[in-house]
Amino acid sequence: MGRVKRIAILGSTGSIGRQALDLIRALPDELKLVALTGDKNLELLERQIREFQPKMFCSSVKLDNSYGGEFLSVEEMVSHPEVDFVIVATAGKAGLSPTLAALKAGKTVALANKEVLVMAGEIIVHEASLHQTQILPIDSEHSAIWQCLQGEENKPQRLFLTASGGPFYHYSQPQLAEVTPEQALQHPVWKMGRKVTIDSATLMNKGLEVLEAHWLFSFPFDSIEILIHPQSIVHSMVEFMDGSLKAQLSWPDMRLPIQYALSYPQRWPNPELPRLDWNKANSLNFEPVDYDKFPCLKLAVDAGKSGGTYPAALCAADEMAVELFLSHKISFTDIATIVQKTLGQHQNISQPSLEEILAADDWARECATRLCLDHYKQPERPSNLGIER
Amino acid sequence: MGRVKRIAILGSTGSIGRQALDLIRALPDELKLVALTGDKNLELLERQIREFQPKMFCSSVKLDNSYGGEFLSVEEMVSHPEVDFVIVATAGKAGLSPTLAALKAGKTVALANKEVLVMAGEIIVHEASLHQTQILPIDSEHSAIWQCLQGEENKPQRLFLTASGGPFYHYSQPQLAEVTPEQALQHPVWKMGRKVTIDSATLMNKGLEVLEAHWLFSFPFDSIEILIHPQSIVHSMVEFMDGSLKAQLSWPDMRLPIQYALSYPQRWPNPELPRLDWNKANSLNFEPVDYDKFPCLKLAVDAGKSGGTYPAALCAADEMAVELFLSHKISFTDIATIVQKTLGQHQNISQPSLEEILAADDWARECATRLCLDHYKQPERPSNLGIER
Repeated sequence: MGRVKRIAILGSTGSIGRQALDLIRALPDELKLVALTGDKNLELLERQIREFQPKMFCSSVKLDNSYGGEFLSVEEMVSHPEVDFVIVATAGKAGLSPTLAALKAGKTVALANKEVLVMAGEIIVHEASLHQTQILPIDSEHSAIWQCLQGEENKPQRLFLTASGGPFYHYSQPQLAEVTPEQALQHPVWKMGRKVTIDSATLMNKGLEVLEAHWLFSFPFDSIEILIHPQSIVHSMVEFMDGSLKAQLSWPDMRLPIQYALSYPQRWPNPELPRLDWNKANSLNFEPVDYDKFPCLKLAVDAGKSGGTYPAALCAADEMAVELFLSHKISFTDIATIVQKTLGQHQNISQPSLEEILAADDWARECATRLCLDHYKQPERPSNLGIER
Repeated sequence: MGRVKRIAILGSTGSIGRQALDLIRALPDELKLVALTGDKNLELLERQIREFQPKMFCSSVKLDNSYGGEFLSVEEMVSHPEVDFVIVATAGKAGLSPTLAALKAGKTVALANKEVLVMAGEIIVHEASLHQTQILPIDSEHSAIWQCLQGEENKPQRLFLTASGGPFYHYSQPQLAEVTPEQALQHPVWKMGRKVTIDSATLMNKGLEVLEAHWLFSFPFDSIEILIHPQSIVHSMVEFMDGSLKAQLSWPDMRLPIQYALSYPQRWPNPELPRLDWNKANSLNFEPVDYDKFPCLKLAVDAGKSGGTYPAALCAADEMAVELFLSHKISFTDIATIVQKTLGQHQNISQPSLEEILAADDWARECATRLCLDHYKQPERPSNLGIER
């Protein structure tokens, strides 16, 4: 199976990071953990460091490295000669600078942090091509597309990203306005972090995935379609120029796309990964998505088409809006309103530098927060911010 | 797109042959017809010869070749230096000797005539390997598997052949006994020849496809599973060692697998091929097959596992039984009984020569006919031959 891959995991205490560690535990002949970073859950990070004794680690506080581990910055870590493969499992803009550092050092990067490509797709893709290294997707949808493209000599005609539709796909507009954070955190299929779970319920997550697919597969926006597929068994599909489609299917389990990125171009046996049981997966349903009902989806795709700093502003405004929703400050449908109003006020910069992207992010956070405060200052607060469509 | 492929079609007046000619008409820059054979429908064959003016042709009677076409034997035709690619679209054992001749001449063979591999899989696969040439599948299921295997470095773990289930999948045993040839010739999805339509209704066709898959992909019988999928959109699936599956989908249209065999390893645009519409294909259902209800399926797979001359005897007995059913001599459920009784009386020869295979075919035809005659001689005819399971 080739030599052992030496892995760095950025964001090891999050959902993807923990599942990547599960795989490293299960596949000791193929994978070796050499570097770890974590941030929010220091207790778990300490346990991980004790268990794996990585050669390098990075965290916001000094941890016990009496076993001989080296404390480094993330950028030093990902470009270290003893790292082959970097799993970017952080969230939001945190992955941006380390991903660039890893690409510049010629490392293979497996990307679960979708904001990296959404905010700075052009820069990231350019760096990867400059240093002749690969960006491998870890999202289940993009992994599906990537698997379906293997061995195909011609560019496909259409990509179909599937979406479970989240828990509220059949809710009416008034019902959506009443959704609580507690309800929204119960995703019907996937167990994920809080931010991505809310993004899944608003379909913002699917919108960000459209942008990610655009950059990963250099595919035009108009040829990327979304299908609601409640069972989350078909993870995405590709249509070729002869009308043939390929789909990738599995029981929903994030360890599969993580392992595929690690084993590519091979596959590895792993009895811990679930098998699809056709007695259970006996009905697969698909319907074209309703863009009107979930405005976040359209906002994201439009930001992608506009390009420049719009996608960075979108991500930042969404992150603030989701936080405000989770702390019961705004309603579920207000998330889209805040993002929409922020983008409406944004002064776009086309072909931005990394600094300009980060400045757009800062600006959008402030703008989104101000929009929310303004709203609360008003003497009579309407039931929600009033979405304009 | 590379140089023009020079095509020979064996069986040009049948369903697959006519669709292959549709493709040659639609793709004149890629494909050129150089040789034709037909047998039963001479009027159509004459029209085809007038239209395409092939350099060579073969038929049971002398046809007009005043345009300069050469009348050759099928074996001379398929090994002619001006032929690159042979489409074997004949039925039954007719394809056996021409396929071997084509392989020995190093031609690429696209196989729609599944009995060739079912009857003589070992010999055919051996010849292909000896002459370093390829056998490409034209069946939609095998084309699907082949498409899904592209670019994969590791052997898959399971193949899932899909089956529409035919028109009678939910019939009771007494209802099945009453099925008429007219009802059985109405296939819900595919428009095909009469023999294969009846084989689809008995699921014998799916059984033969299991044997075909075994030889085409050198895959063990116990890892080939059958899923009833009434919509015939997913044409088959492959499961890999990590639990990931790939499926190939399309609107049911035989021109797609024919074109893929011709365009492989590329794909060609062809606006005449239908596109899948997700507003129509909105529900895909799957269930494991009921082997007890359709004994032909189990008979076929068991004959494949036993090997030797059993598969040839199976094909021949089935061909006779289907003819007897179509001429209202036996009931629908008698088809399985005749095949079963023929196989029960068969003296198997393992690792048979081509002659021994053809002798088994002859013997089984006689045996099946005798079984039917014996049945009619009995003073009191039961409602059917009495299937034993």
